Amino acid sequence: MVTIALIGYGNLGQHLHAALEVLVDYKVTQICSPSQALETRNGVIYRASTNQLTPVDLYLIAVKDDVIESVSLQLPPDAFLVHTSGAQPLSIIAKQSRRGVLYPLQSFSRDTPVDFKQIPLFIEASNQQDLDVLMNLAKKLSDRVMPLDSKGRFQLQLGGVLVNNFVNHLYCQAADLLAQHQLPFDLLHPLIMETAQKVLRIDPKQAQTGPAKRKDLNTIEAHLAVLTDENQQEIYKLLSRSIGAYDDKKH
Amino acid sequence: MVTIALIGYGNLGQHLHAALEVLVDYKVTQICSPSQALETRNGVIYRASTNQLTPVDLYLIAVKDDVIESVSLQLPPDAFLVHTSGAQPLSIIAKQSRRGVLYPLQSFSRDTPVDFKQIPLFIEASNQQDLDVLMNLAKKLSDRVMPLDSKGRFQLQLGGVLVNNFVNHLYCQAADLLAQHQLPFDLLHPLIMETAQKVLRIDPKQAQTGPAKRKDLNTIEAHLAVLTDENQQEIYKLLSRSIGAYDDKKH
Repeated sequence: MVTIALIGYGNLGQHLHAALEVLVDYKVTQICSPSQALETRNGVIYRASTNQLTPVDLYLIAVKDDVIESVSLQLPPDAFLVHTSGAQPLSIIAKQSRRGVLYPLQSFSRDTPVDFKQIPLFIEASNQQDLDVLMNLAKKLSDRVMPLDSKGRFQLQLGGVLVNNFVNHLYCQAADLLAQHQLPFDLLHPLIMETAQKVLRIDPKQAQTGPAKRKDLNTIEAHLAVLTDENQQEIYKLLSRSIGAYDDKKH
Repeated sequence: MVTIALIGYGNLGQHLHAALEVLVDYKVTQICSPSQALETRNGVIYRASTNQLTPVDLYLIAVKDDVIESVSLQLPPDAFLVHTSGAQPLSIIAKQSRRGVLYPLQSFSRDTPVDFKQIPLFIEASNQQDLDVLMNLAKKLSDRVMPLDSKGRFQLQLGGVLVNNFVNHLYCQAADLLAQHQLPFDLLHPLIMETAQKVLRIDPKQAQTGPAKRKDLNTIEAHLAVLTDENQQEIYKLLSRSIGAYDDKKH
């Protein structure tokens, strides 16, 4: 039985807890979050502060990036500490020699259940023995587990920003364009789904269409002429230029 | 029985044909495309040239935007002509007084079947009687039909460029970032699907996350530092700035 203390109980922490709860051989014994009062529920002790924690085999840190370091400094120096950030290196855990990372490449929402089995997990540890521990755990959580160093993980998270944060911002801009004509955003739902589903089947380079891809300057000019927002114009110009230049580069 | 000649037999034309084939009271009697030899299959006459067409009740034009006008000039002046473009106004059909538009807001791929019932259709016609004809047809094809003028349709198509062409380009850029570290693009599939599915449930403004949204300048700087491509840097900067400024504006 591997005992686990879960530190941080936001979106990721809660989803991790749900995924860990169903595993045999692993037991979340303590959950630590400033919002938690000291009490025991379903055999788990909830604690408001890290200095109330009693020793466990693995400390799983699911807090915001900018407090990982300070949280790690409050934990025992001989403990195995694992953070869950895509952007932070293994070395952000400075004091403990037994460091690890378990990074789930997904965006978590409070009220949406996730199937952890489908989420790619990337692991890293400061020694082979701890990497094996993480690998065993990760394989029980997900069907897709890959050891990856901090540099690769950071690149992956950057890719995630593009396909999640930036894509969602384009959804926002499109919603605003439609709202100008009293058109509801859900008219775009089928196109949004088709666009996403298509790149599950074919390479995004093959899936590219549209006026910029066709170098259809008349339509591009006409689109720019109806964009009243300067920022939207800039986005339209830059992305159209980038699409137009994309095929010319070596890919 | 409304007889239809389908002009243009690319991705859209073929999907339209499949959707029309199952309707009672409507019959595609002729299909015209330069790539077609003169022959009859399943009761449909295929023709290579518009001047071989015999009169029908409705001419459905599914050709590229820049040839709609020239195709329409080759057709009878008293005929009812309907084009299928989001970007072109009703008036692009210059000679005929009976003009119409039937615009499906979707991206069509050759080998992917579509459920036309789910695709929003936007219709426009130069007189009420023809609008009724189009409305009847459109309602049989799709569960979501809306009359919309050329200006509104153009805005909608512009929104479609954002959530389809631009989003797909971001997928391309993310694929390239991963490839730099020999990471396969399909690692991003679950995140891509979650991002798309989330805005089917909640407003994209509510769904926005990430470093730019949090105004996390450290992560933004770190991301920019690993981007080696100047164009990718520009896209990252502009979209991050736009996300950061978005909440400050009145929305």
